[in-house]
Amino acid sequence: RAHLSVDFLDNGDDSAVNVSSNSSRLGFRGKHDLDYGLRGIYQIESEIRFDTQGGEIASRDTFAGIEGDFGMVRLGKFDTPLKTLRSRVDLFGDQVGDARNITRSTVRFDERFRNSIHYRTPNMAGFFADVQYSTNTDNAGGTDDNDNDAISVSGTYRNGALYAAIAYEQHNSPDEDLSAVRFAAAYDLGALRFTGLIQQADVDDDRTDNMYGVGVRYNLGLTNLKAQAYLLDADVDDADATMVALGVDHRLASNFTVYANYAFTSNDDFQNADPYRQARSGGTAAADGETASGLSLGMIYNF
Amino acid sequence: RAHLSVDFLDNGDDSAVNVSSNSSRLGFRGKHDLDYGLRGIYQIESEIRFDTQGGEIASRDTFAGIEGDFGMVRLGKFDTPLKTLRSRVDLFGDQVGDARNITRSTVRFDERFRNSIHYRTPNMAGFFADVQYSTNTDNAGGTDDNDNDAISVSGTYRNGALYAAIAYEQHNSPDEDLSAVRFAAAYDLGALRFTGLIQQADVDDDRTDNMYGVGVRYNLGLTNLKAQAYLLDADVDDADATMVALGVDHRLASNFTVYANYAFTSNDDFQNADPYRQARSGGTAAADGETASGLSLGMIYNF
Amino acid sequence: RAHLSVDFLDNGDDSAVNVSSNSSRLGFRGKHDLDYGLRGIYQIESEIRFDTQGGEIASRDTFAGIEGDFGMVRLGKFDTPLKTLRSRVDLFGDQVGDARNITRSTVRFDERFRNSIHYRTPNMAGFFADVQYSTNTDNAGGTDDNDNDAISVSGTYRNGALYAAIAYEQHNSPDEDLSAVRFAAAYDLGALRFTGLIQQADVDDDRTDNMYGVGVRYNLGLTNLKAQAYLLDADVDDADATMVALGVDHRLASNFTVYANYAFTSNDDFQNADPYRQARSGGTAAADGETASGLSLGMIYNF
Repeated sequence: RAHLSVDFLDNGDDSAVNVSSNSSRLGFRGKHDLDYGLRGIYQIESEIRFDTQGGEIASRDTFAGIEGDFGMVRLGKFDTPLKTLRSRVDLFGDQVGDARNITRSTVRFDERFRNSIHYRTPNMAGFFADVQYSTNTDNAGGTDDNDNDAISVSGTYRNGALYAAIAYEQHNSPDEDLSAVRFAAAYDLGALRFTGLIQQADVDDDRTDNMYGVGVRYNLGLTNLKAQAYLLDADVDDADATMVALGVDHRLASNFTVYANYAFTSNDDFQNADPYRQARSGGTAAADGETASGLSLGMIYNF
Repeated sequence: RAHLSVDFLDNGDDSAVNVSSNSSRLGFRGKHDLDYGLRGIYQIESEIRFDTQGGEIASRDTFAGIEGDFGMVRLGKFDTPLKTLRSRVDLFGDQVGDARNITRSTVRFDERFRNSIHYRTPNMAGFFADVQYSTNTDNAGGTDDNDNDAISVSGTYRNGALYAAIAYEQHNSPDEDLSAVRFAAAYDLGALRFTGLIQQADVDDDRTDNMYGVGVRYNLGLTNLKAQAYLLDADVDDADATMVALGVDHRLASNFTVYANYAFTSNDDFQNADPYRQARSGGTAAADGETASGLSLGMIYNF
Repeated sequence: RAHLSVDFLDNGDDSAVNVSSNSSRLGFRGKHDLDYGLRGIYQIESEIRFDTQGGEIASRDTFAGIEGDFGMVRLGKFDTPLKTLRSRVDLFGDQVGDARNITRSTVRFDERFRNSIHYRTPNMAGFFADVQYSTNTDNAGGTDDNDNDAISVSGTYRNGALYAAIAYEQHNSPDEDLSAVRFAAAYDLGALRFTGLIQQADVDDDRTDNMYGVGVRYNLGLTNLKAQAYLLDADVDDADATMVALGVDHRLASNFTVYANYAFTSNDDFQNADPYRQARSGGTAAADGETASGLSLGMIYNF
């Protein structure tokens, strides 16, 4: 997938034109039948920086495993169940206005686990559960005690027009543990889709930040109109932020979409959230307390 | 493409045998039909160092865009119009004797623009024009003012046996601007091809270096004989250089060529140009004022 | 190939669970017919770190060359003849218990040559010879004298149930030269395979370390039972080590194998060999003089 855009970014102090590569990627994947009714699965996916060259091999979801009637087990480095909830309801994923500009603004969840083992249950009448354990989120692992391990779990219900899921994730470390709870839902009503996300994150022992997001998309055939708003309610004074995003996209082929988006953040005096840096290249943080905005003309090409 | 050679290199002081990987590469590209008679295009190309491992993802021409009756627009990182002129007339591209050993000897043009937007006009009776703009040649871009932007433009005429093109390129920076004008031509006369290149480069406010190159190739069916000479006329004392290259290549298949080349540079007292380092791995700069030479036995395998 | 495992590693002091990517890789290769009855060959192979992302392009065997009745010539970076001997007889290659945990324990052979030229003779009644020369094992090469060159040669006999080979390798450097002689053999007797390896390595001018290994594998159709033992006889006091490995593997498809292995090293007071770090990610060296062990549950998926 090539996802490129030309952006007009303003961080409150300076502004500039920017060419951005937005989580563009290249991957290989496959399935093979095994004995006992099992299937082998694998994927190797790498980020490609179309704008500046570079990117690390296997930097995106990369795994191998086995699936069958028992569910799925896989090993590798890939999105956690908690992260997956956001990608299901974020109407501006990888674009200006991406929800992670708020959900990651004070603590960095929405990541992939390294050195991880993932089990997914079979689908039971629309419900399934995920458990992912990382032996070590920091590096290649070792023979020391598993001091930097982490766990992420979720339960998902999906049936017809309704998607609803809840997830919990905890990162352990010798210093301090971090955890978050997240609830996400989406509902289709004719040509309209409504989305919502709630997150409560324990940033440290004394602080719990809350985030809330809502979105709506209106489908007109090849064209979509969409809007979402995310709010950070930080557990310290004068550190809240609000992000509003508006967009229109149009399909030129089943695998080629062009779009125009506008998003901005409004920050309290001690907050510097912007609407354009997460999952994208380029842009600098907002000046403290200022309004940062981005206008983006982009294309998404799934080759 | 695997392009490898065994070289006998002499920098004027020392000499050695060397195995060189010469802009070897691996890429992916494609096209898809879109609505309104448009086509989506993309390419991801990475250098592969066959001799020493390594190379950065998407380090060569990497882009995505749209083409149609209006021409072509693409975003990414790729050769500028100025650079393209040289590759059209350089008879020793990526080999010992590559013209860039002279054209880059005092100032580094012949590069790719990062963060760039490129528009090419439709072909009009053999003529077309290119405009490429980089929002920032240095890095991933930002919301600061576009202080490091750059532009490269060219006009090209191609009809039957004649190719002729002119290009202008300017790199801006807070410190000092650089610019170059280049003219290139090639003409086929039976089995002979004649080529020429002229470049005038503003190295800094007070200095303008001129470069001149001529080449000739004689086609004998599967075998070619070829020669070219490039001259640097530097705008400071005792810094001129001359490069002469001679070669023979033979096709073993439509996608497999072997060759033997010899090239040398003759340097003024304060110049250290060599004929073997550009676009290739290995080799050290000439000793100041010395003659550097390279004898290369190579293969080019376009898989 | 994805080769991943979940390991329980103990270095004598600490222990932990670890997810390991074991020389997992992705590659491209091909052949084309040329004139004169020749064939062009190439391969580009890169390590993929499934557990932590990353890996360098073309970090594994990467080459291009020509083969025909005269034998094969290729240029690039790839396993030396000396290294190849081990991979032919190591029953735990890339797994816990890999022979390189001993053969590399005091001096690092079993590598790829950079900047190398390789000639292999035609097969003559089961016998063939290999000569590989590296102009420079350290870096991209240069015009200095070839002070860091290296050579590796081998003779191999393979006929029916018998494989036997001998190899010699020498690394030159301005400081000190290193060399090793290696003998390897394998013999199939019904469902049993017996393997053996002997290595004598000149670690420096005054020290010659010897290593010995034996292995046996019993084939039960889709399942194999296997064991091997490697011994380091170091030419200094109290620096010997012994490694024992036991394993069972089972094929779930022609390209998918699961296995369970257990291996440990027993070290003299001044030795810290472990059975799990070579060709694999994760794990820390044994504590001096302690016993290090690893239990590994893995899958090998050749896609």
